[in-house]
Amino acid sequence: MKVALAQTNPIIGDFEYNLNKIDSAINQAKERSCDLIVFSELMLPGYPPRDLLEKNRFIESNLICLDRLLASTTGIGVICGYVEKNLNPGGNPLYNSAALFENGRMLHVARKRLLPAYDIFDERRYFEPARDCSSIKYKGYRIGLTICEDVWNDKDVFQRQIYPIDPVDLMVKDGANLIINISASPFYVGKRDFRLKMLSRISQKYGVCLLYANQVGGNDSILFDGNSCAFNTKGELIAQARDFEEDLVVVDLEKKTGDVHEVSDSEMASLEKSLVIGTRDYVTKCGFSKAIIGLSGGIDSALTACIAVSALGAENVTTLFMPSEYTSQDNFEDTKCLADNLGVQFLNIPIHDIFMAFIKFISPEFNPREPGVTEQNLQARIRGTLLMAMSNRDGALLLSTGNKSELAMGYCTLYGDMNGGLAVISDVPKTMVYDLARFINTQKETIPLSIIEKPPSAELKPDQTDQDDLPPYELLDPVLKAYIEDFKGADDLVGMGFDPKLVGSIISRVDQNEYKRHQAPPGLKVTSKAFGYGRRYPLAQRYAPFSEKG
Amino acid sequence: MKVALAQTNPIIGDFEYNLNKIDSAINQAKERSCDLIVFSELMLPGYPPRDLLEKNRFIESNLICLDRLLASTTGIGVICGYVEKNLNPGGNPLYNSAALFENGRMLHVARKRLLPAYDIFDERRYFEPARDCSSIKYKGYRIGLTICEDVWNDKDVFQRQIYPIDPVDLMVKDGANLIINISASPFYVGKRDFRLKMLSRISQKYGVCLLYANQVGGNDSILFDGNSCAFNTKGELIAQARDFEEDLVVVDLEKKTGDVHEVSDSEMASLEKSLVIGTRDYVTKCGFSKAIIGLSGGIDSALTACIAVSALGAENVTTLFMPSEYTSQDNFEDTKCLADNLGVQFLNIPIHDIFMAFIKFISPEFNPREPGVTEQNLQARIRGTLLMAMSNRDGALLLSTGNKSELAMGYCTLYGDMNGGLAVISDVPKTMVYDLARFINTQKETIPLSIIEKPPSAELKPDQTDQDDLPPYELLDPVLKAYIEDFKGADDLVGMGFDPKLVGSIISRVDQNEYKRHQAPPGLKVTSKAFGYGRRYPLAQRYAPFSEKG
Repeated sequence: MKVALAQTNPIIGDFEYNLNKIDSAINQAKERSCDLIVFSELMLPGYPPRDLLEKNRFIESNLICLDRLLASTTGIGVICGYVEKNLNPGGNPLYNSAALFENGRMLHVARKRLLPAYDIFDERRYFEPARDCSSIKYKGYRIGLTICEDVWNDKDVFQRQIYPIDPVDLMVKDGANLIINISASPFYVGKRDFRLKMLSRISQKYGVCLLYANQVGGNDSILFDGNSCAFNTKGELIAQARDFEEDLVVVDLEKKTGDVHEVSDSEMASLEKSLVIGTRDYVTKCGFSKAIIGLSGGIDSALTACIAVSALGAENVTTLFMPSEYTSQDNFEDTKCLADNLGVQFLNIPIHDIFMAFIKFISPEFNPREPGVTEQNLQARIRGTLLMAMSNRDGALLLSTGNKSELAMGYCTLYGDMNGGLAVISDVPKTMVYDLARFINTQKETIPLSIIEKPPSAELKPDQTDQDDLPPYELLDPVLKAYIEDFKGADDLVGMGFDPKLVGSIISRVDQNEYKRHQAPPGLKVTSKAFGYGRRYPLAQRYAPFSEKG
Repeated sequence: MKVALAQTNPIIGDFEYNLNKIDSAINQAKERSCDLIVFSELMLPGYPPRDLLEKNRFIESNLICLDRLLASTTGIGVICGYVEKNLNPGGNPLYNSAALFENGRMLHVARKRLLPAYDIFDERRYFEPARDCSSIKYKGYRIGLTICEDVWNDKDVFQRQIYPIDPVDLMVKDGANLIINISASPFYVGKRDFRLKMLSRISQKYGVCLLYANQVGGNDSILFDGNSCAFNTKGELIAQARDFEEDLVVVDLEKKTGDVHEVSDSEMASLEKSLVIGTRDYVTKCGFSKAIIGLSGGIDSALTACIAVSALGAENVTTLFMPSEYTSQDNFEDTKCLADNLGVQFLNIPIHDIFMAFIKFISPEFNPREPGVTEQNLQARIRGTLLMAMSNRDGALLLSTGNKSELAMGYCTLYGDMNGGLAVISDVPKTMVYDLARFINTQKETIPLSIIEKPPSAELKPDQTDQDDLPPYELLDPVLKAYIEDFKGADDLVGMGFDPKLVGSIISRVDQNEYKRHQAPPGLKVTSKAFGYGRRYPLAQRYAPFSEKG
């Protein structure tokens, strides 16, 4: 049996668009004489549809499209993810399902058994978990048809099984000799390696072939890396689709061979690709083609501009430099040079006059040598307002440029530099921002070296550098990672050797600034725990990680 | 047996504060010779703790506090909600539990069986559902101890049972003759009546007494109304605690009598109380005492100011009037009169000079008779920036003043009038804003009549009224309610008699403006479906409710 793994980039709710993608992949697979083509999880509506699933008509449309697809496809078997109604009188009203059909006949429907309800996942909100773990006979194979999380509960891979059953195990016991998994598995740096090892281990342990078809592309914060793949019964990789691109790979199950396409060979390469596709998809799926970015002369906005140009093309990116009296001449030159390297439009609007028009009312006694938080924020808000005015005027989406370290510490101004439709690097820690900038420069020196080498500064008061207000990033970032991504507490961090005072001050700043992040634009998720949808903290709370007497 | 129902207002994560509340209620109950005191769901950590539940130390602190409480309480039985660890090797790591203890001995732990995962609820994210529905003998009764959702799956009340079991039914079959429910049940207008009827029906159907202890107060968007109560075996109300206040009521189970305290006698009265407590709790639990509000001369900001004064006191509220050349003199006078009636500080900052300082760069060819969207938004953003500057300068939390109808339609400016730490009336539709304003005026004429009677206007261009850009609110609000709160689709709405064109234009504006609401401050939830945490839509999506050919 020859199987095509179709790795597509759907638009949520655009059923016609998604059907066209499906049709064209089916044609490709038929040209290559495939017996079966496998699409990703919820390919018909796109993943994740979230509360669109609560709209009756949305479900109906998805079912009508499935019917059309079923009626119009001949000469090849199809596995495709869709939303099924739960016709039982009780339980959640929907299933997250995979249909297997051929020549107008529905052969099998597999329903997702394990419904994730952690991080960005809310599947218990919509779907009823299925219990059935039987396999299905198809063209000489017994297929165990699974959906994403269904393969993520292996007792040899995970210390704790959060679900009571392991569908793969049960299906193999039911005779399955081919496990197919359709996924919409979100990306983070390092995830691909983990996922490949897990899938390989499963296929090796059970001595079964395993086919894995994953969604690709960005939907709001969530990025899907693709990396669809296949394993033989020894757990060896026999097919591999590209990362962060639509692709189709064919596997010959008898010959145990398949297409092996090139993928990123380093974490930085996949990080860059993920941010580029995430930016492109957000901007274009929202109906924009142009973007606008405020350039400060610092590395964050420089990196954001590079990504935007890769995503949208230089002709679609406008940059705006907005100096104040605290802005150094160097920053103007560096920014100009960057804009020239990128070939983007470059505007220069000094903010002094606007600033003084505000100051008259707010701080009549203002001393320009000593701007307080009010005056510092005011500068950022004037810039944010200018950027939004340009965005309104030109119909260009504003991209914000803050990194994860500053967002964590609240070292950013709400309604100022946090303004934007998309926060491109808000999940990239500052030290990783440097790494990625250097990586991008290895391809072509786009970012002027002086931007990479100067000490970071918000330039909101005289001679300011980030290190006046923040611990050095080399110290800060590991603490933030341990606290946010690895769920370490204050005591754990001290136990790991970090200075207790440093830990206390970092943690309390992270916690105190939850309210700013609550109003932040969506940010592209590239770590295992990003701020935003997958991290849900109360704002009005007084949990003090160090202080309980207990 | 005499039972006290303790209706308390915890602060999330402030274990000492919550313990003090518990201690003082226990003392009250002992003074009144109670045998048992019942606290609300998760009273120890406060509800909802959200991802604080993913912090190990948070769980430990809550357990240590439970131990302290258990060790220190004598002479009375206590039922109290807390977070329990799931010591089984698999499943979610926590239970949402209720402890029953007395004189240093733990008598029983009941674990929540039904875990809501809809609207604002994410309990499947953290907790493992329990299966045990046995009852427990205590002082001559068999208690069925349930937690919130456990009583919300009755087949005579709900058309569809989303959970496979009904714990009340199973407990009564196990011999329970007293159902106790500890809750953190969020408020919306009309919920109390529904809840009382449901509880009454349950106690009557099974012929059991039912005791209900609910949390009170606001936590971010979510308001808890209290309204703790008790029913005799005939389903008659025998005890009733106040709404939107801490309270303690005593029930004598043998005499079938209890304290009946006064509650709001109208929807408007409960709405006003809910907004006042929500504002007070958000501001003070976040550590602020003062608030700042931009007054426009319109009804939304007038109502918000009234609520803020009731919540925080006139001395803690500053108001700011920021006229442009489009602002009428009437609005100045109305606003001044309102501020005088309320006794709040009133500042007047004209924005013309600041506006012109921006215009020079953005629209050099600007025609003041024809401000476009860019210039209109700019005015709102200048005001938002001024308000934030005052907020920064004076340490006062900015309250935003937009209503639900305009937030639904995106008739508001991101980083402008949407600025604020809390959106006080963002879940109150415009027509309800009028009702509430009139209701408040029946107590004392605070809001000048001319504010209530003038046609609503954003005053961002000459002679503008809301009805230039929006359907009349009497038409708009019913469509919005049907679409947002009642999950009606476009076809349903047309079937209900609404004009198809009107429906199409409203629905698409609601959908298109999801991105604005994504960055909105938390808003107090007072309807069954508020924007924000409980309504989760993708931003980059293209679902067109009318256009699928299907």
